[in-house]
Amino acid sequence: MEYRIEKDTMGEVKVPADKLWGAQTERSRNNFKIGAPGSMPIEVVHGFAILKKAAAYTNCELGVLQVEKRDLIAAVCDEILTGMHDDQFPLVIWQTGSGTQSNMNVNEVIANRAHQLAGKTIGEGDKTLAPNDDVNKSQSSNDTFPTGMHIAGYKKIVENTIPGVRTLRDTLKAKADAFKNVVKIGRTHLMDATPLTLGQEFSGYVSQLDHGLKALDNTLDHLAELALGGTAVGTGLNTPKGYAKLVSEYMAEFSGHPFRTADNKFEALAAHDAIVETHGALKQLAVSLNKIANDIRLMASGPRSGIGEISIPANEPGSSIMPGKVNPTQCEALTMVCAQVMGNDVAIGVGGMQGHYELNVFKPMMASNLLQSAQLIGDACVSFSEHCASGIEPNDARIKELLDNSLMLVTALNTKIGYYKAAEIANTAHKNGTTLKTEAVNLGYVTAKEFDEWVRPEDMV
Amino acid sequence: MEYRIEKDTMGEVKVPADKLWGAQTERSRNNFKIGAPGSMPIEVVHGFAILKKAAAYTNCELGVLQVEKRDLIAAVCDEILTGMHDDQFPLVIWQTGSGTQSNMNVNEVIANRAHQLAGKTIGEGDKTLAPNDDVNKSQSSNDTFPTGMHIAGYKKIVENTIPGVRTLRDTLKAKADAFKNVVKIGRTHLMDATPLTLGQEFSGYVSQLDHGLKALDNTLDHLAELALGGTAVGTGLNTPKGYAKLVSEYMAEFSGHPFRTADNKFEALAAHDAIVETHGALKQLAVSLNKIANDIRLMASGPRSGIGEISIPANEPGSSIMPGKVNPTQCEALTMVCAQVMGNDVAIGVGGMQGHYELNVFKPMMASNLLQSAQLIGDACVSFSEHCASGIEPNDARIKELLDNSLMLVTALNTKIGYYKAAEIANTAHKNGTTLKTEAVNLGYVTAKEFDEWVRPEDMV
Amino acid sequence: MEYRIEKDTMGEVKVPADKLWGAQTERSRNNFKIGAPGSMPIEVVHGFAILKKAAAYTNCELGVLQVEKRDLIAAVCDEILTGMHDDQFPLVIWQTGSGTQSNMNVNEVIANRAHQLAGKTIGEGDKTLAPNDDVNKSQSSNDTFPTGMHIAGYKKIVENTIPGVRTLRDTLKAKADAFKNVVKIGRTHLMDATPLTLGQEFSGYVSQLDHGLKALDNTLDHLAELALGGTAVGTGLNTPKGYAKLVSEYMAEFSGHPFRTADNKFEALAAHDAIVETHGALKQLAVSLNKIANDIRLMASGPRSGIGEISIPANEPGSSIMPGKVNPTQCEALTMVCAQVMGNDVAIGVGGMQGHYELNVFKPMMASNLLQSAQLIGDACVSFSEHCASGIEPNDARIKELLDNSLMLVTALNTKIGYYKAAEIANTAHKNGTTLKTEAVNLGYVTAKEFDEWVRPEDMV
Amino acid sequence: MEYRIEKDTMGEVKVPADKLWGAQTERSRNNFKIGAPGSMPIEVVHGFAILKKAAAYTNCELGVLQVEKRDLIAAVCDEILTGMHDDQFPLVIWQTGSGTQSNMNVNEVIANRAHQLAGKTIGEGDKTLAPNDDVNKSQSSNDTFPTGMHIAGYKKIVENTIPGVRTLRDTLKAKADAFKNVVKIGRTHLMDATPLTLGQEFSGYVSQLDHGLKALDNTLDHLAELALGGTAVGTGLNTPKGYAKLVSEYMAEFSGHPFRTADNKFEALAAHDAIVETHGALKQLAVSLNKIANDIRLMASGPRSGIGEISIPANEPGSSIMPGKVNPTQCEALTMVCAQVMGNDVAIGVGGMQGHYELNVFKPMMASNLLQSAQLIGDACVSFSEHCASGIEPNDARIKELLDNSLMLVTALNTKIGYYKAAEIANTAHKNGTTLKTEAVNLGYVTAKEFDEWVRPEDMV
Repeated sequence: MEYRIEKDTMGEVKVPADKLWGAQTERSRNNFKIGAPGSMPIEVVHGFAILKKAAAYTNCELGVLQVEKRDLIAAVCDEILTGMHDDQFPLVIWQTGSGTQSNMNVNEVIANRAHQLAGKTIGEGDKTLAPNDDVNKSQSSNDTFPTGMHIAGYKKIVENTIPGVRTLRDTLKAKADAFKNVVKIGRTHLMDATPLTLGQEFSGYVSQLDHGLKALDNTLDHLAELALGGTAVGTGLNTPKGYAKLVSEYMAEFSGHPFRTADNKFEALAAHDAIVETHGALKQLAVSLNKIANDIRLMASGPRSGIGEISIPANEPGSSIMPGKVNPTQCEALTMVCAQVMGNDVAIGVGGMQGHYELNVFKPMMASNLLQSAQLIGDACVSFSEHCASGIEPNDARIKELLDNSLMLVTALNTKIGYYKAAEIANTAHKNGTTLKTEAVNLGYVTAKEFDEWVRPEDMV
Repeated sequence: MEYRIEKDTMGEVKVPADKLWGAQTERSRNNFKIGAPGSMPIEVVHGFAILKKAAAYTNCELGVLQVEKRDLIAAVCDEILTGMHDDQFPLVIWQTGSGTQSNMNVNEVIANRAHQLAGKTIGEGDKTLAPNDDVNKSQSSNDTFPTGMHIAGYKKIVENTIPGVRTLRDTLKAKADAFKNVVKIGRTHLMDATPLTLGQEFSGYVSQLDHGLKALDNTLDHLAELALGGTAVGTGLNTPKGYAKLVSEYMAEFSGHPFRTADNKFEALAAHDAIVETHGALKQLAVSLNKIANDIRLMASGPRSGIGEISIPANEPGSSIMPGKVNPTQCEALTMVCAQVMGNDVAIGVGGMQGHYELNVFKPMMASNLLQSAQLIGDACVSFSEHCASGIEPNDARIKELLDNSLMLVTALNTKIGYYKAAEIANTAHKNGTTLKTEAVNLGYVTAKEFDEWVRPEDMV
Repeated sequence: MEYRIEKDTMGEVKVPADKLWGAQTERSRNNFKIGAPGSMPIEVVHGFAILKKAAAYTNCELGVLQVEKRDLIAAVCDEILTGMHDDQFPLVIWQTGSGTQSNMNVNEVIANRAHQLAGKTIGEGDKTLAPNDDVNKSQSSNDTFPTGMHIAGYKKIVENTIPGVRTLRDTLKAKADAFKNVVKIGRTHLMDATPLTLGQEFSGYVSQLDHGLKALDNTLDHLAELALGGTAVGTGLNTPKGYAKLVSEYMAEFSGHPFRTADNKFEALAAHDAIVETHGALKQLAVSLNKIANDIRLMASGPRSGIGEISIPANEPGSSIMPGKVNPTQCEALTMVCAQVMGNDVAIGVGGMQGHYELNVFKPMMASNLLQSAQLIGDACVSFSEHCASGIEPNDARIKELLDNSLMLVTALNTKIGYYKAAEIANTAHKNGTTLKTEAVNLGYVTAKEFDEWVRPEDMV
Repeated sequence: MEYRIEKDTMGEVKVPADKLWGAQTERSRNNFKIGAPGSMPIEVVHGFAILKKAAAYTNCELGVLQVEKRDLIAAVCDEILTGMHDDQFPLVIWQTGSGTQSNMNVNEVIANRAHQLAGKTIGEGDKTLAPNDDVNKSQSSNDTFPTGMHIAGYKKIVENTIPGVRTLRDTLKAKADAFKNVVKIGRTHLMDATPLTLGQEFSGYVSQLDHGLKALDNTLDHLAELALGGTAVGTGLNTPKGYAKLVSEYMAEFSGHPFRTADNKFEALAAHDAIVETHGALKQLAVSLNKIANDIRLMASGPRSGIGEISIPANEPGSSIMPGKVNPTQCEALTMVCAQVMGNDVAIGVGGMQGHYELNVFKPMMASNLLQSAQLIGDACVSFSEHCASGIEPNDARIKELLDNSLMLVTALNTKIGYYKAAEIANTAHKNGTTLKTEAVNLGYVTAKEFDEWVRPEDMV
């Protein structure tokens, strides 16, 4: 491989000649061979592109950066946002916990690419832009990285997670409406209980997701706070007056999201409770989704030896050995996602609780887990909606059979003959394998006519 | 021990003669010898007292319960709320996951105590009140238990957690104000960084708690939703018309909190995402508090071989072997609480995600963890505030010594001479064990006068 | 209340006159009002009693403590172990993270009680024993507390958890043997699969618990290492020569368990990986038990609208509103315990990972969680074994009905006619609601005779 | 793009013409667009290659597969193990929880590639091998996937994790030996305590890792049990006699690891406690490593305003804004890994506890988390060892300065003058900012000569 020489404050480094990155990126690449290369989420890099462009505009407007430099920086940032340089960010999550070298990776790529855009070959002559003094002007890793991860996380939540969950929510709502008259046996403790409609059951799922979406929405205000302008420790050292507010406005404009400068920059560097807060809402959604997916696969179980109250789409052969088997595979993918999100919540909490003084140094790990959970929940909800929920159909005959057989319809008699006598009827029918009506009449507690009048599943929902 | 005979639908049970509980309580007591007796949180029982009284008033108002019975139920509930019957609730958390026998425990105690209030001996004549048909009228365990746990949790959060956290927040705010001019060295990656004021550091803690309190407050709306009126499966079977709304109004009135009936009763029985949501906010607070307590003990470390920038109160001898030792014990208590809350969050999530069909059967466990976390955070914040935070004082001489020595003041030169030359100055001073000024002048990058003018910690904050 | 004056190195403290504890206990009691009083597990106190007695014997044997003092200390320790002083330990978990004041609580109670045993009134004359110089001789909180918690945890695991799990394991093994010929439908993905016997299903549970018990046993070697002899930082300062080894032998003798002195005392004070390790095995058992309990309640679900393949004992009325309902309450208690243990595992991990330098200061929290999990798993297994597992009976008719109906018996034809044709038979029967045999013959892939010969559930297990 | 038609039991599917996979892979690819494509760990695919080859050899030896087919299967498996087909496995973790389509992906790739090796074009004529009837012969997804994940996990632990941890352990051991005479101040509660040597401190880290490695080793026996031979539900339906044992011997031979057939196949399909167990040990290592890395960065903190007792290598510029800053970046990478492993442990536990009946359907998620943790811990330990631990050097002057200043040396006087007088000396010196010796003599408790003789740090370690 061919190399060129790049320099930083520690000296010279050999960098692959065809790469845009510089000395610090190369150092980090060599010093942190932990897990797969390039694991730093590209969404964070793209968040950086928005902030670097915003910083350039702000620095220019506040008189500390020339227009030509601003435009070069902006041009490269726009290129980065198209994805064309995605292979220029080879660093891993498991580097310095401030993400310093990922900030420098962006600075270096912008500087070298700008050199190209200025018509020169990398390494030819003086750098058109200095990675630290120009691209990183009025910035520090300590405020850029949290800014980049907030931008990335916010975008992912708003553009992927919420639409995905809403898609599933709407599908379930349509099913709740469609099934509103399907009376079926209820089950508590997994045991037969009094009836309800299948639509009522599904309405509970909808309500769970509505609450979850609201909880997630509640967290966005904190996540919209951006650290940029705090620089090294939160004081904003080396930033021009008015910088923090103005740069946040540019970031809002360039991203299309309502970002604003964090009221307290010391918190914004030293703690990432906003990530903890947002992921807490994702975990709540995972808890809800696990319940929903579990119910659906239980109700769809069978086809002959399970519950079988609903059918779900058969999307793929279910077994490599058992011919004709169809499995609730979308439920399984979704519940695996839920388990992962439960774990990611702990990883984020553990990272969030361990900051020291002016800096939390678990940033890349926290960002990575947030982005993974946000991606997986959004994607899995869409997948589940499309390939499972939208195709759910009630098996009416089976539902009716189970309902008619149930002993818990006896509950309707509580208010007529009291809990004790009702219990006696149910217990006797259970013991004898007979019907409630038979035993109710045999025991002399009601007449057949009264029974028919009082015990009507459709009136019990 | 003397016993009397109590009966339920399964037959006769011997109950200690001096106890107010009945057959079902006794069965559960014998069937679930898991952990310490009586572990079911008394706050849940008190929540039940509020709901039982409200149900009695509602049933009476809607014409299905006599005034005399209402008044007897209410009288016993009021007694329970004074704590005078706390020893009549011997059941454990680890019983049926619906808390059915704890509901019955309350029903039985109310019925038997009402019998006494009616001037009779327990077991004498017919029961004045029937535990199921009167006390439990228009109710099921499946809607009462979640109602009781929401009432208990909401009260604990509002009456203990929030005031406790606010106490600490206010103490830290007062310190942030008091320390606003104490310029000190900043630290990132645990390494010396650019300066800030001690007040700025504390302002970050205040901001964390403000965000945490807001996040917690955001969850209260969901927690204020009560399941009562859903009865067995959420349909409200066996309740009179208008019951759910009216009973929630009585519960709000009797508790003094803005409870309301849950929009969707199916969710309210089958899932406890509200508990997950509220505890998620407690976990966020734990994450914040851990960071704060850690910082404080690091800054107070020493007295001679640590950081020593602040002093904290000496509350107790610190060592049984090392005389004269004073330890950050309040920090330790608080961080242990934080670790516990991190664990409780997982327990609650695991319980919350595993509901089946119409009922989540992890209710007592979820309630218990929520109440423990809410109690501990509130108490620990008050303790930490009183016995530690309020007594924090800066050690001015030590702070100044560390600040004046720092190499990171060189950052102020970035905008004057560029990042590379500034780095050279710092590296040279570090290598030679000299001061920045010496090397800055030696290297010829600035004059002594310029250095003094440009590198002023008090201008860097 | 009446008080007496006690003193420590910080001065005088008023202590309730009727209590045996002294100044430091009282300080801690007042400074840490966090959660319920007296939450420090009594098992840890009893662990302390064993170690204080062992230390007294060792100190005496090594010539640094008089025989009279040794005997007084031992006499009080023996009293403590009977439980007669349990109310003399009022401190909470949420105190200093080294448990220093709980160590002093024990020292103070021993000293004051010894004064009584020596025939004097507390406060009368010079103390017969000095809490620090005599009772705590050759010790520090930093080595006593981890020793006390290892003793407590080891005893709980060996005396409660393992026997409890073994009880359940043996019950399940007996069921596996009893059910070895009960052929039933298998289920994978909750869907009908090829048959197996009920005994085979239960044998899987037995194998899980056998592996879990082995994993738990593997951890005991680490837990048997005791820190005593490390004193303040692990060096053993202020201990006589030979002390560590000898005192561990006395602790082994007095407890009846194979304790030994930790090879590395620095680890033994600064990290509690042994607690992490042992609790990891408890978590594994929780994972296993959750699966087992879930299976059993699914198989027992019904009675008419569920799976209904087995019956479990009806221990208590299942519903306060639905008469005649019987629920899998033991499964619910057990799975709630499992969820708690999952949470406790995180609490312990979070505490374990945060030690600093020579001391981990999450000791009481870690001890408390270990003891709770160990108690709950042992108790819940016994409860589940007695009140549920031992009463499990197969519902033979139901099992046969479900088996005969199954489409997955077609798998037996794979090796005769190939996977594709077998799938076609199953799919056709599913679509038509017919039997496999009908469609197999109709499609011309097998004769009726071949079908009967090849598709025999009892040959498929 | 060009396509060809592939078929499975559900009908025809269009597959990209240049790919080796078939119908089921393509279905799964389209049905599960969740997260990044191809996320199924390649190590699992390679595990499958070993088992497919072993199955072919076993089937052949037991007379149910022709030699030609065996050799074709083996040839493709060997190719897969070289990595040359890594791009033929496009499926995600978040598919069916049994990994069925990943099993089919392997079957399909083997069949199509074998067709090529047999000199034909894919789709030309009859398939040389049938994916189900030949490649999957005597197998089911339900026993192959857990086998593949055990092989993958075992190899990763043994070939990456253990060597990585050992590398770090040996580096720390060498440092412990090198530093065995460096007497320094101890710290407990982050506060000055009695002295120890730096070597003793490091010996504690070594002991932690030794215990962790032993704990990890203890889990390998369970992980070495392979499910293969259980087929669909654990009964081994459709396998020739002797298959399970023989195939495990081939897997052991082909992998070079001591795999053996699981004693109980029902457990091996329905539960993955072995994964839970092994990951529990990884979590224990994470707890240990977090403590070690924390200590090292605390001791290396500074350079002028921290502890500064040791120096660690400067590997990269530490700050994009603060020139000359050097940070403990390897500590940060390692502790981020530890946080991730803490989270992965919960994900695995949550998945492990939720199996149903004969199958746990969280397999790919559990495998993925185990492999990630095993990779990260191994890699991070090597990185930390090479780039940090091996370069640690004590700062002797600083260590001596802190030691000489310490007040806790007074502990040496306990056994001479008693705890109370010693405390008085320390407290007085602390208050007056003087030395212990000054106050000890002033207070008249010891002579200067006695002090010098009794208070010698080097005798206190």
